[in-house]
Amino acid sequence: MTPEQMQDGILNGNPAVQRRAMAKAITLLESTRTDHRAAADGLLTALLPHTGGSFRLGISGVPGVGKSTFIETLGLFLIGRGLRVAVLAIDPSSTVSGGSILGDKTRMEQLSVHPDAYIRPSPSSGTLGGVAEKTREAMLVCEAAGYDVVIVETVGVGQSEIAVQGMCDMFCLLQLPNAGDDLQAIKKGVMELADLVVINKADIDPHAATRAQAQITSSLRLLGMHGNPEHAHHDERLWQPQVITISALKKEGVEGFWGAVEEFRRLQQANGRLALRRERQALSWMWERIDSGLKQAFRQHPQVRALLPQLQADVAAGRIAASTAARNLLQAQAGPVAAPQ
Amino acid sequence: MTPEQMQDGILNGNPAVQRRAMAKAITLLESTRTDHRAAADGLLTALLPHTGGSFRLGISGVPGVGKSTFIETLGLFLIGRGLRVAVLAIDPSSTVSGGSILGDKTRMEQLSVHPDAYIRPSPSSGTLGGVAEKTREAMLVCEAAGYDVVIVETVGVGQSEIAVQGMCDMFCLLQLPNAGDDLQAIKKGVMELADLVVINKADIDPHAATRAQAQITSSLRLLGMHGNPEHAHHDERLWQPQVITISALKKEGVEGFWGAVEEFRRLQQANGRLALRRERQALSWMWERIDSGLKQAFRQHPQVRALLPQLQADVAAGRIAASTAARNLLQAQAGPVAAPQ
Repeated sequence: MTPEQMQDGILNGNPAVQRRAMAKAITLLESTRTDHRAAADGLLTALLPHTGGSFRLGISGVPGVGKSTFIETLGLFLIGRGLRVAVLAIDPSSTVSGGSILGDKTRMEQLSVHPDAYIRPSPSSGTLGGVAEKTREAMLVCEAAGYDVVIVETVGVGQSEIAVQGMCDMFCLLQLPNAGDDLQAIKKGVMELADLVVINKADIDPHAATRAQAQITSSLRLLGMHGNPEHAHHDERLWQPQVITISALKKEGVEGFWGAVEEFRRLQQANGRLALRRERQALSWMWERIDSGLKQAFRQHPQVRALLPQLQADVAAGRIAASTAARNLLQAQAGPVAAPQ
Repeated sequence: MTPEQMQDGILNGNPAVQRRAMAKAITLLESTRTDHRAAADGLLTALLPHTGGSFRLGISGVPGVGKSTFIETLGLFLIGRGLRVAVLAIDPSSTVSGGSILGDKTRMEQLSVHPDAYIRPSPSSGTLGGVAEKTREAMLVCEAAGYDVVIVETVGVGQSEIAVQGMCDMFCLLQLPNAGDDLQAIKKGVMELADLVVINKADIDPHAATRAQAQITSSLRLLGMHGNPEHAHHDERLWQPQVITISALKKEGVEGFWGAVEEFRRLQQANGRLALRRERQALSWMWERIDSGLKQAFRQHPQVRALLPQLQADVAAGRIAASTAARNLLQAQAGPVAAPQ
């Protein structure tokens, strides 16, 4: 399938053709071959005018919190309302092991076979930044294909949440009704990213869920009150992060959850913050990819590769100051390339 | 004064000559002129074999916690034990305002005039990374001059604590006996950097201080228990971060504080972790400066400067994907430089 056929299939194809074109396009975008990348960039630029229409919903939580059950329940609920739903994932463990667990279709039995749902597992290898880039591009493909809601799932390790929050319109954190869990989320900086905190499995111990709700509400208020205004992304006059309780397994509370999402979306659209958030996300994304590219080019530069081992040893042994070594290496990269050996 | 004279003064001068040579050397290291930088690198490399003998103590806390009083009390206590003490500072506000408040001699009346103390205020401008680099280099000058303890002070904003923790052997966090203060420190990721938490002003409300001590001890245990082992810098079998209460104003608890510092130092030296920590710090420091230099060179590249405004506008408006723009800019920098206009 050529990139032009993928484009046509994504924008105009019947359901079966579109689904196949989406899969081919995302595979092309995930390729690391240079010629594939040029074709992928062309495809992406062609699709771009047709993107931006979806609501981008980020969902995170530690393993065992019930993300898959929640997404299955939520996805079927949204389809029942006439919406088409895409589910993507960023699996931070894939950057280490090459494994890919999130967005696994087998964990979302009904949703994965529904014609109005499209589920794509996490890209299976690369740096976290690289995996996040692929997911972000896959999100644009889903948007061009007309999906109404794109859910991006990740698991609680901190860095991957920052990546997901950086590509979504709203970031939801799933928590268990356990004491101490909120402290971990605060520590990892995940709590302050959340627009909405959802306490799942509330049916198991309703009292614990209520206590957790009060505790997290109080933590969010403290975080918001004393936060560094430069880092805070919440303007409290506009949206105070909420804490709600649900039971995804018993399908209780999903309607309330979606009500909160819609309220947030309405507010953010009305006051222009949704557009501003997307603009900032795109620019941060560009700089993040530039930083990553600069580091890669530096490490691959022949003069740097020639000098680095000795300089690293000298710095480690205290024979040369770290700042001096850094300047020497930067000069080596900037200078003329040595003749081939 | 030539760099050779500075070197000789620092290593061999009488107290007055040494003090003057140190001031001149640090001023040279802080200069941004290219020729000064080359001389500074030479001086640094010459001093390096004489460094490493000090204990490097980082101290942080929010404004009002009593850092200056604490450092004055501690400094005089150490001098009373026959030690020479240097005090340096990283003022994160200096990167914004150009102002320089930390390490201000007027706030340490007795210490600042003592012949066995050397106090240098924070470098007054630049990026946080640049300010931290200057402070790190000033620390090496103090070490070469034979100071036994180098205290590096900063104020609680998160990033500057990471910089101080990255150049010190031990990082101490000063806290007030207030509920909620510890949550802020956890949120900013400062709490988990601490080797020792000191609750100051314990005399004002001893009961509140005891409560805060219990609360922070419990938080530290939770942070340690559930922490990501890759990120945790504490191996709990070796050192469990402690929480102690003092009153710097009434000079109560300073001996206990120093006892904890000495115990930590003894342990870390005996098990080799002090040497390992310094080696890792030097290498991270090198990479941090490389990253910063790469970004600066990128932003100053003529082709990047020519393309950036339009590409940024295109990315913000959604006409081009962020990842495509990043690749275009990286290629522009890597390609041949355009002829002068």
